[in-house]
Amino acid sequence: MLFKVEMSVQLPSDMPAAVADEIKLREKRYAQELQTQGKWRHLWRVAGKYANVSIFDVDSNSELHEILSALPLFPYMEMHIEALCRHPSSIYDDDK
Amino acid sequence: MLFKVEMSVQLPSDMPAAVADEIKLREKRYAQELQTQGKWRHLWRVAGKYANVSIFDVDSNSELHEILSALPLFPYMEMHIEALCRHPSSIYDDDK
Amino acid sequence: MLFKVEMSVQLPSDMPAAVADEIKLREKRYAQELQTQGKWRHLWRVAGKYANVSIFDVDSNSELHEILSALPLFPYMEMHIEALCRHPSSIYDDDK
Amino acid sequence: MLFKVEMSVQLPSDMPAAVADEIKLREKRYAQELQTQGKWRHLWRVAGKYANVSIFDVDSNSELHEILSALPLFPYMEMHIEALCRHPSSIYDDDK
Amino acid sequence: MLFKVEMSVQLPSDMPAAVADEIKLREKRYAQELQTQGKWRHLWRVAGKYANVSIFDVDSNSELHEILSALPLFPYMEMHIEALCRHPSSIYDDDK
Amino acid sequence: MLFKVEMSVQLPSDMPAAVADEIKLREKRYAQELQTQGKWRHLWRVAGKYANVSIFDVDSNSELHEILSALPLFPYMEMHIEALCRHPSSIYDDDK
Amino acid sequence: MLFKVEMSVQLPSDMPAAVADEIKLREKRYAQELQTQGKWRHLWRVAGKYANVSIFDVDSNSELHEILSALPLFPYMEMHIEALCRHPSSIYDDDK
Amino acid sequence: MLFKVEMSVQLPSDMPAAVADEIKLREKRYAQELQTQGKWRHLWRVAGKYANVSIFDVDSNSELHEILSALPLFPYMEMHIEALCRHPSSIYDDDK
Amino acid sequence: MLFKVEMSVQLPSDMPAAVADEIKLREKRYAQELQTQGKWRHLWRVAGKYANVSIFDVDSNSELHEILSALPLFPYMEMHIEALCRHPSSIYDDDK
Amino acid sequence: MLFKVEMSVQLPSDMPAAVADEIKLREKRYAQELQTQGKWRHLWRVAGKYANVSIFDVDSNSELHEILSALPLFPYMEMHIEALCRHPSSIYDDDK
Repeated sequence: MLFKVEMSVQLPSDMPAAVADEIKLREKRYAQELQTQGKWRHLWRVAGKYANVSIFDVDSNSELHEILSALPLFPYMEMHIEALCRHPSSIYDDDK
Repeated sequence: MLFKVEMSVQLPSDMPAAVADEIKLREKRYAQELQTQGKWRHLWRVAGKYANVSIFDVDSNSELHEILSALPLFPYMEMHIEALCRHPSSIYDDDK
Repeated sequence: MLFKVEMSVQLPSDMPAAVADEIKLREKRYAQELQTQGKWRHLWRVAGKYANVSIFDVDSNSELHEILSALPLFPYMEMHIEALCRHPSSIYDDDK
Repeated sequence: MLFKVEMSVQLPSDMPAAVADEIKLREKRYAQELQTQGKWRHLWRVAGKYANVSIFDVDSNSELHEILSALPLFPYMEMHIEALCRHPSSIYDDDK
Repeated sequence: MLFKVEMSVQLPSDMPAAVADEIKLREKRYAQELQTQGKWRHLWRVAGKYANVSIFDVDSNSELHEILSALPLFPYMEMHIEALCRHPSSIYDDDK
Repeated sequence: MLFKVEMSVQLPSDMPAAVADEIKLREKRYAQELQTQGKWRHLWRVAGKYANVSIFDVDSNSELHEILSALPLFPYMEMHIEALCRHPSSIYDDDK
Repeated sequence: MLFKVEMSVQLPSDMPAAVADEIKLREKRYAQELQTQGKWRHLWRVAGKYANVSIFDVDSNSELHEILSALPLFPYMEMHIEALCRHPSSIYDDDK
Repeated sequence: MLFKVEMSVQLPSDMPAAVADEIKLREKRYAQELQTQGKWRHLWRVAGKYANVSIFDVDSNSELHEILSALPLFPYMEMHIEALCRHPSSIYDDDK
Repeated sequence: MLFKVEMSVQLPSDMPAAVADEIKLREKRYAQELQTQGKWRHLWRVAGKYANVSIFDVDSNSELHEILSALPLFPYMEMHIEALCRHPSSIYDDDK
Repeated sequence: MLFKVEMSVQLPSDMPAAVADEIKLREKRYAQELQTQGKWRHLWRVAGKYANVSIFDVDSNSELHEILSALPLFPYMEMHIEALCRHPSSIYDDDK
């Protein structure tokens, strides 16, 4: 089941760079682990913004929440989430 | 080059059904032709809305405009468009 | 899997009353059928508005879309949809 | 009498974790006590957000205010509140 | 129990004047009847707009809905509704 | 002359409780003094929010500003102000 | 007493030109009459829009409403109104 | 050439009073100097808010920017700016 | 003097194609005439929308209004206008 | 390929002036370097705001992101980005 998740990140301006880098590193590992599992199906950068557009493939709303709320950057994120489903005009078999 | 395009459709309430169906048919053929060409890379329905989330793969802004403005439903659409690019945490080779 | 769906209805001002009543009748039957099946789990009226707050219990995003897009009033509705899941502080067993 | 209350939580980024955890613990106990009393009738997590959708069953607006303003997380919450009532198409006896 | 209700009216531009006047007449009678009953406790005009700010005193959300949805101008109104209760600094006995 | 004033309060999260309480005490005295004078004609709490809906009865815009800008909580308030006047359907003599 | 009133005009697209011109003519006469009386103290066009920024000098909210609601273009206007008063840094005697 | 400029001021809550007063003093002197020069043509307080509505009379956009960006309170201001011009219904000779 | 003007066009859905084409033709001629004069300095299409971003070079606000309000598509346009001036970091001599 | 980028800057109020000046200096050098390369094609100041309207000429979305995210002021900027393309009514050869 697919969800579009748009994440916009706003780190506190007084956060030390080292702290920020450490969180970002954990975020990257976590994101790549989920992509390897096929959960985080697409991950694109929005050009010109500290934001991404992602497509998640999960089995339930609960799984979506577990995944997103465990993002190291979660406390600094604004999320916009939409449930997706197959479009009648889609020719792609795996775009469930 | 990827663009996220969210299309929300609002047909005039007094449009005869036959007219609407004819436009939708042309829209479907046009969309499937573009998917076959690889231009319309992803097409998902937003669950519960007459709207879609799409990812286009084009060579330029101009090509994006030509494609979108030729959509039969274009006059009845509200578009939200964002330029995408490769995310540093993406593991997908083809998610340029 | 639960979804909160808020539906706000705006019928065209020039729609004949008989046409409106007929659509509303079909809407009521459809809503009651889905409630009987357990799909439309909660249906409340927003006091003072031609709008409702509903909780749907479905197996997938696709099923949610099929149900909502088949609402007779769907073309006249503005939808606000959020995916829900179990809250860690909830004591209710069936509030999945 | 039912009210839909959507709570979105934003803790100050410089709040020590211990302080936050202590408030959350009190929040959980308070929420579960109210659910036991039947006041807090439904409590769902919004998937992907530090937010919930809740349905309260109270005897008056005043009681609603007393309950909500006593939430330990109240100072850090943005609330969206709508008064609900029975929908003419509802088949549920207890969805007053 | 008090509710603040802000009503903004937008009549269709092609509605014949006679039709509009007839609806407004019914609206006035209905509003004055409710004021006489004490339900419609305050009714003020927003200076410069076809809108009002009203305070309703009702026994339940359901009663609020019955009253508002029976307004002859209801189909042409945009409503903004907030539940009110006694303010700790209020010195007025009857401002429940 | 009546004005509807909606005040929403947001105190800085790092303000010491004692400082906040002292300001609130002054606010309460000030509000009750104005009610006694008949200037602050109605004061209601918005259920579930640190906000109020108030009706002021003043002789001029200047007087309204003097009263509001002298509120101890003024620096921490977001105001929404609308000028009111008598509604043609009002039956209340004193709802000028 | 001064009020800033911003008026944005949107005429129905199917209104015959003659009808529109007739209303505009009445509007112009009415506006010039009020300016002569000193009620409509300033009237500026917003560059590039069918909108104006005006300053009214009236004795009460009621008078403001009477003046604005009698504008021939009133049914086709969106109004944004703010009560003004003397600024402590103003050096102008008559900018009450 | 006239511009409407609406300035809303939000000082940091932790700014010492003495610092704030000093800035405000410089702001007042600057504003009165510009009024004397005829640049700052109107300056009104928005009743109930730390905000003003101003009309500037400048020779160019650049001059407008120089004037506004030199306001001592500029870093703490939110600006809403609209270019104005003579209204065809204006009877005032000097309301260019 | 430069102004950024963003124009978004929404033609009535029931406007006959011939009428629309005739207006668009006049619009094109008018736009090209102004570009030739150097008034309409830049004209870009927003990719994917019936909208443009334009830069006008005019001598006054009034001239800007005369130019924009004479656009054949003006009644069907939503405008967003900002006054521009030279940026301190600009190296372009003619980007006044 | 052209993009319109609107940048609005909000520096933390507690940032020491020296730190701010140093960042602004690097920003200016970076901006002028990009203008020299022809990447930053237009840079205008929005009159009255710490904001600019810019036109970038880049070969891809990725290049746009690299350029913008390397702006020294990037962490303190709010960006609004739109992809542009040639307008059918444009007479300028180089306004691709």
